[in-house]
Amino acid sequence: MPCPPYDPSSPDGATGPFHNPVPGNGIPDLAKRYRIPARQGCAVRMKAGQTLTLYNPKGNQVCDFFALTDGSESEFLSMEHCRTALGRIYVQQSDVLVTNRRRSLVEIVEDSSAGVHDILIACCDQHRYQQLGAQGYHDNCADNFRRSLLAIGLQAKHVPSPFNIWMNIPVSESGAFTWEPPVSRPGDYIRLKALADAVFVMSACPQDMTPVNGIGVQPAELEFHVD
Amino acid sequence: MPCPPYDPSSPDGATGPFHNPVPGNGIPDLAKRYRIPARQGCAVRMKAGQTLTLYNPKGNQVCDFFALTDGSESEFLSMEHCRTALGRIYVQQSDVLVTNRRRSLVEIVEDSSAGVHDILIACCDQHRYQQLGAQGYHDNCADNFRRSLLAIGLQAKHVPSPFNIWMNIPVSESGAFTWEPPVSRPGDYIRLKALADAVFVMSACPQDMTPVNGIGVQPAELEFHVD
Repeated sequence: MPCPPYDPSSPDGATGPFHNPVPGNGIPDLAKRYRIPARQGCAVRMKAGQTLTLYNPKGNQVCDFFALTDGSESEFLSMEHCRTALGRIYVQQSDVLVTNRRRSLVEIVEDSSAGVHDILIACCDQHRYQQLGAQGYHDNCADNFRRSLLAIGLQAKHVPSPFNIWMNIPVSESGAFTWEPPVSRPGDYIRLKALADAVFVMSACPQDMTPVNGIGVQPAELEFHVD
Repeated sequence: MPCPPYDPSSPDGATGPFHNPVPGNGIPDLAKRYRIPARQGCAVRMKAGQTLTLYNPKGNQVCDFFALTDGSESEFLSMEHCRTALGRIYVQQSDVLVTNRRRSLVEIVEDSSAGVHDILIACCDQHRYQQLGAQGYHDNCADNFRRSLLAIGLQAKHVPSPFNIWMNIPVSESGAFTWEPPVSRPGDYIRLKALADAVFVMSACPQDMTPVNGIGVQPAELEFHVD
């Protein structure tokens, strides 16, 4: 019996209406400070050369970060291609991140934190929370990605593996890893430069069933501005 | 200026016509030994419960392995979801590999080799060979994947990060890794069970610019049968 078809653009559910923090078509007012509420997402249109500064006000919050090329939702930031380009399973300041066509799309121009981020783990989704024991619908980064895109008139062709900013997944020499609380501090920020026209999507990870967002498992808001 | 649109199903080129080793619709004759010529790919339709035994006749050859759910080319074996499920950056015998919807699709039921495989690195593509200095078109695993699917009437929605069988990418404690020759030996095999109806796609990796396929950088054939 064939498996039921899967539409990557279609959210698995919702706990309420979606409001993109950058209203309308996702073009930001430069220098304006935007807020992504806890458990929510945001899509923002970036021009080549612009920089997004992402803030972690509480310090414990992970951001699942995605970037699509403007004009082609099938080409996006790809962690497996980044690893190949970098020769590492970790990223660091000054790294250039690439797409699934190996083109440079995002540069990490500044990082105030200790530099502990993850590029190995899939974003959370409804299926993950069901496996963790959630009852009913649970907010998740895959749906935040899909709904953020839909809010600016785009459809996800695939939910890429994200750049998990401030997510702490230490890998042991044996290759085993664990999900640990972030080591980032309140007010930490990271500056990401668009190297081509792009759509940046951020999800304030709603994970409250593992300590990914801190030992208090209390998902928090994120903030950003573009200049 | 928007980036040019990207069609994931469209090969970047070809060095010659494509012949799927399993002719027609990709349904294999059970127990028949099929050969995937060096640098080429193959798509084969699997029923839930069937097992594919993949052989490495020369011992030095990497297989980029993909699996799609039957009936939905958007749902496929996903290495980032496998890592999450396994809690490791390596696979081993008896592991169950999952899709981007976290459903079980493939089980590693037997592995005659030392178990050195890779689940971190993107498959090679035309862009990768250009970056390595290739002149003109170079056979690659992304195009083998696309062309294998087209041969049985399917279109790739995305080129997933593959299960790189026998590929040797040791990761150091610092997170840096290198591309090393396989440690597999002539005649090694791996048995992969389909846990749901699926399309398996294999590419005999045509990498001849790094020692991924052995220090002789001589890409070789693969063989398989289904039962």
